[in-house]
Amino acid sequence: MAFMKKFSFELEKEDGKARIGKITTAHGEIETPVFMPVGTRASVKTASPDEVKDLGAQILLGNTYHLYLRPGTDIIKKHGGLHKFMGWNGPILTDSGGFQVFSLGFGSKNRKNERLVKIKDDGVEFRSHIDGSKHFFSPESVIKMQKEIGADIMMAFDECAPADADHNYARKAMERTHRWADECIADNEKIKPLYGYGQSLFGIVQGVVYKDLRIESAKFITNRNFDGIAIGGLAVGESEKVRNEMIETVMPYLPKDKPRYLMGIGFPQDILNAIERGADMFDCVLPTRLARNGTLWTYEGKLSILNAKYSKDLNPIEKDCGCYACQNFTRSYILHLVKESEVLGIRLTTIHNLHFMMRFMEDIRNSIKENKFEKFKKEFISKFS
Amino acid sequence: MAFMKKFSFELEKEDGKARIGKITTAHGEIETPVFMPVGTRASVKTASPDEVKDLGAQILLGNTYHLYLRPGTDIIKKHGGLHKFMGWNGPILTDSGGFQVFSLGFGSKNRKNERLVKIKDDGVEFRSHIDGSKHFFSPESVIKMQKEIGADIMMAFDECAPADADHNYARKAMERTHRWADECIADNEKIKPLYGYGQSLFGIVQGVVYKDLRIESAKFITNRNFDGIAIGGLAVGESEKVRNEMIETVMPYLPKDKPRYLMGIGFPQDILNAIERGADMFDCVLPTRLARNGTLWTYEGKLSILNAKYSKDLNPIEKDCGCYACQNFTRSYILHLVKESEVLGIRLTTIHNLHFMMRFMEDIRNSIKENKFEKFKKEFISKFS
Repeated sequence: MAFMKKFSFELEKEDGKARIGKITTAHGEIETPVFMPVGTRASVKTASPDEVKDLGAQILLGNTYHLYLRPGTDIIKKHGGLHKFMGWNGPILTDSGGFQVFSLGFGSKNRKNERLVKIKDDGVEFRSHIDGSKHFFSPESVIKMQKEIGADIMMAFDECAPADADHNYARKAMERTHRWADECIADNEKIKPLYGYGQSLFGIVQGVVYKDLRIESAKFITNRNFDGIAIGGLAVGESEKVRNEMIETVMPYLPKDKPRYLMGIGFPQDILNAIERGADMFDCVLPTRLARNGTLWTYEGKLSILNAKYSKDLNPIEKDCGCYACQNFTRSYILHLVKESEVLGIRLTTIHNLHFMMRFMEDIRNSIKENKFEKFKKEFISKFS
Repeated sequence: MAFMKKFSFELEKEDGKARIGKITTAHGEIETPVFMPVGTRASVKTASPDEVKDLGAQILLGNTYHLYLRPGTDIIKKHGGLHKFMGWNGPILTDSGGFQVFSLGFGSKNRKNERLVKIKDDGVEFRSHIDGSKHFFSPESVIKMQKEIGADIMMAFDECAPADADHNYARKAMERTHRWADECIADNEKIKPLYGYGQSLFGIVQGVVYKDLRIESAKFITNRNFDGIAIGGLAVGESEKVRNEMIETVMPYLPKDKPRYLMGIGFPQDILNAIERGADMFDCVLPTRLARNGTLWTYEGKLSILNAKYSKDLNPIEKDCGCYACQNFTRSYILHLVKESEVLGIRLTTIHNLHFMMRFMEDIRNSIKENKFEKFKKEFISKFS
């Protein structure tokens, strides 16, 4: 049985190192640079899939770790994949679960003084954060789950070492990541897609904050037949300066004709810094998580809607914003809703922040088309920070 | 300054004692019998005003007590009324706050052994359930607040005595309610509407579970120039039999040419019983509150979406239901969302239950039009209960 691969990337234009491109998947096209809203548990928190689509989201991210634990990939498979389960017909990217396994368990020990995460050469044994039950993720199981989920873009299983790991440990984690990358490629050949469309696979560059390791990892991963290259292990505690250095270190080794995904980055300044250095894809829970705490992003900067000064403010969240929240409701009303824990409040703040992100990414793409990215970046940051 | 009254009721058809009619308000028409979704704090919990409109809601209910405490009627006034504050352009009915004042405080005492609610002849002193601050509601203040809110239908201030009040107390409460009814009518003449449209006023029949008092109260209230008549003080602990008896006792005294609002009733069987006895308007938090606990109403009966048997069920909540939840998602997915506390879960269950109520009321109206109300009632109850 042959499946159409249905994945391609076309680099359309560069402005300095910033680039615009187009990814084609079985569930549609994606213009890059792109921000991917996070739907950890098969839902972008508070929003319906139709709202997310109407906001202009081109692709969503799902979390293999969470979906594996609940509802379980068997239930998703029974629905014919995550797209059908959650009612989202656009492209989906799933992480490999590696980040969650390590970040949820790293350094943690149970009452018997046992590590909650045991890293072995063939995979990772860990305990569920929900009920403490024991589980094992391997390159093969992670590919199998992502096939069952039916992600358009799957991620290789990697070890995401913490930002303060020493060079010795960082090398070990990187080498394990490389072995697992090769295993994932082999498993991807072996395990066929279940739903009649091809699924692509991205490799992940690791190496913590060590330039030599980052270069070695970039060379290794780009030398494999991945459909796209991710930079992992950043935004985990390192400084902005170090983060930018790591991106600059890796980028020259990445092929121009593959998309570059900087994992877990979502703060506007960080996205601008990364695009300036050649990154194409981003994901982060920050815009939606902050929204639920009442923190809103606008082109004029951040605001906390719970600030008492907005209690009688009849303006929208942001003056020239076209989102449903800004077109229909006042700051005063939204403050009231969020303060009273009315669900509509966090729905409206989520809609605003996601709309902001979509508008922000579109403005970035337009600025690159017009060779004005640096100007856009400078003007944006002068108001936002 | 003269304001157009803009309130009328037209009785269109009777089928036994069941009736269909049309209420006209400044914000639109309402076909009766009607169920009014409750938007206690200026939001029908989890839903946007556009969703509520799309579901077919004809009128919403707001709670004066809650809106007075938060955000405060001054803020609503600043917006030009509740319609603009919450983005709902259809008719709004507000209760008078009487029910909340009494039900939140009745019998409760603070640490100094003082009653939290002090009932005086000119009004009620109570402490806020939020911060313990002291407040006073009188017929005049309640009318003033409802004018500031801008309700299309205002309710007179009443004392809602508990179901187990003795005859002596029930009489006292009723007589106070009658005095306050006259004061509300006078205050309504005195305090002009603020927003250029007329606001109607409904009186409330009280009398706990005593037939003589219910008759006396019905005669008193119908003898005043109210735009509609409410039956209050039911669904507060009495049996279904007693509730039906009280409705039957009151109804013969109510004029046919005014709408009859049975306050706080929302359970389908209770609505059918009341319509059978001549009631036109209903409100209740039950459909939306139960939805948030995962209890769903269908024409085949009730179901709890959290029941494990639905975890792999690919059917919609209800087979032939046209709501957004049933048209797009499986029981399995909705169970997953509700279990994981994903907001979309309780949004979908709320949408389903409200859609159910709107469909139920429409089917009731159609059955009356076709002189088939009793048949509809019998068939519905045979499956639902």
